[in-house]
Amino acid sequence: MPLAMIDNKIVELDQLDPACLDRGTFFGDGVYEALRSYNGKLFALDEHLVRFERSLSEIEIGGVDIEDIRRKVIKVYELSGISNAKIYFHITRGTGPREHFSRELTPRFFLTITDAPDGREAKTNGISVISTPDTRWKRCDIKTLNLLPNVLAKSKAEKNGCEEAIFVNDDDLLTEGTSSAFFAFFTDILRTTPLSANILSSVTREFVLKACQNLGICVEEKSVALSEVPKADEMFIAMSSKNIVPIVRFDSVKIGNGTPGKNTKLLIAEFANLVTQHCQNF
Amino acid sequence: MPLAMIDNKIVELDQLDPACLDRGTFFGDGVYEALRSYNGKLFALDEHLVRFERSLSEIEIGGVDIEDIRRKVIKVYELSGISNAKIYFHITRGTGPREHFSRELTPRFFLTITDAPDGREAKTNGISVISTPDTRWKRCDIKTLNLLPNVLAKSKAEKNGCEEAIFVNDDDLLTEGTSSAFFAFFTDILRTTPLSANILSSVTREFVLKACQNLGICVEEKSVALSEVPKADEMFIAMSSKNIVPIVRFDSVKIGNGTPGKNTKLLIAEFANLVTQHCQNF
Repeated sequence: MPLAMIDNKIVELDQLDPACLDRGTFFGDGVYEALRSYNGKLFALDEHLVRFERSLSEIEIGGVDIEDIRRKVIKVYELSGISNAKIYFHITRGTGPREHFSRELTPRFFLTITDAPDGREAKTNGISVISTPDTRWKRCDIKTLNLLPNVLAKSKAEKNGCEEAIFVNDDDLLTEGTSSAFFAFFTDILRTTPLSANILSSVTREFVLKACQNLGICVEEKSVALSEVPKADEMFIAMSSKNIVPIVRFDSVKIGNGTPGKNTKLLIAEFANLVTQHCQNF
Repeated sequence: MPLAMIDNKIVELDQLDPACLDRGTFFGDGVYEALRSYNGKLFALDEHLVRFERSLSEIEIGGVDIEDIRRKVIKVYELSGISNAKIYFHITRGTGPREHFSRELTPRFFLTITDAPDGREAKTNGISVISTPDTRWKRCDIKTLNLLPNVLAKSKAEKNGCEEAIFVNDDDLLTEGTSSAFFAFFTDILRTTPLSANILSSVTREFVLKACQNLGICVEEKSVALSEVPKADEMFIAMSSKNIVPIVRFDSVKIGNGTPGKNTKLLIAEFANLVTQHCQNF
């Protein structure tokens, strides 16, 4: 008789909770999004849903109604009553006996609404980051559940007293953080990695570029080499959960004078304006 | 209040089955093994446990007693009463709210015992394979739950009427299949990809090499280039579930005379001998 065991408990295979046979667990066969709300309003939901739809299509998960996902996110967010929330959701290809590929499965939706992390301290004082080889696969533009290299890089960062790890590719170019986009100022020009299959098309990155436009800051979409790090005047990372977070130390290099730089602070303020403009009421 | 949603059902976050917050699903943060039994006896359990222990160590999951895993596998296998079984097990770093890295978690064990696939038809007639770019990460020597590139490659194979996809790296060299090791005969010399961080240290591959030794077949551990495919006289893949499976077509190229080759047949017979010698009674 087909059997399963979870920790110490033996169960008949057909009595298992479908969550135990989810292809998310067996293969990371799914895609996800993470966004947040500010003061009771969801920020950039449209942009996240557009990216989510593309991710689903790239890994060939069909039959998902994005408008249905939108309604679910809004409904559960409103029920949660959390003013500043982190909204995470994923879809996996389905659940069933482990086969590398199975058609005719029903995609599974999973969503959590929790308190957003408090980013104020990091934003005020800046963080330290470490560089690490980019060992990831060649389609980092898809936001998939295959995140083990990111987990291991984050572990390395924490072991070294850092808050984030920045990936360095085989050409010695910085790509992005484990869960953030990467930016550096050289005098008053902002440099960031150009979009390609090697990095995620970050929604927060798009809003950073808008903020630059509003402020008249010149942007160059050109990767920063590891060797250029000591020459950078300011640095920051950007992600949905905390938007702009200044970097004040990169490996053993102090960035600027070791506190968040003036351009970065201007961008943080302008980002807050954009948040107010782009938050959605339902 | 923190909330979750599974498909259409809303639940309080702290009421969720731990399986829903398993790091296996969020990140593929775990490692696995798959082996089989022949006629009521487990084949190469020791070898699989050695590799499993290494995988755990490489992704820094500690606190797992391998002897305890061995006892669990044997116990549930015996209870299942399945003569020719596929034994799959994984360990994830644990369960909990989604954070890229969390220490102090309790690893979660999951095991299934099901009927082994029937490999007789494939073994007798051979299979068709397709080549596909190797988009995977740089540590394919670790048997992790990050398997989405393998899933997508298998999907491509199926869409093209093939049973397996063989990965081709940036140097145009064949590495391995989505769930198999790759071998080709050039006259009477067997070529296979040398072990490195780019391929899995396949247990079945080791037994194929033993079978070659027993038969006096010369082996060259040197990758086969895609351009060499038309010159190959015989080809096969090897994996735990079906051991040796002949390849009779590679992309549009007929291999040999389109039926399993003589050396491959000799190896299939010798592999069966090794199975008898190395199966374990408990």
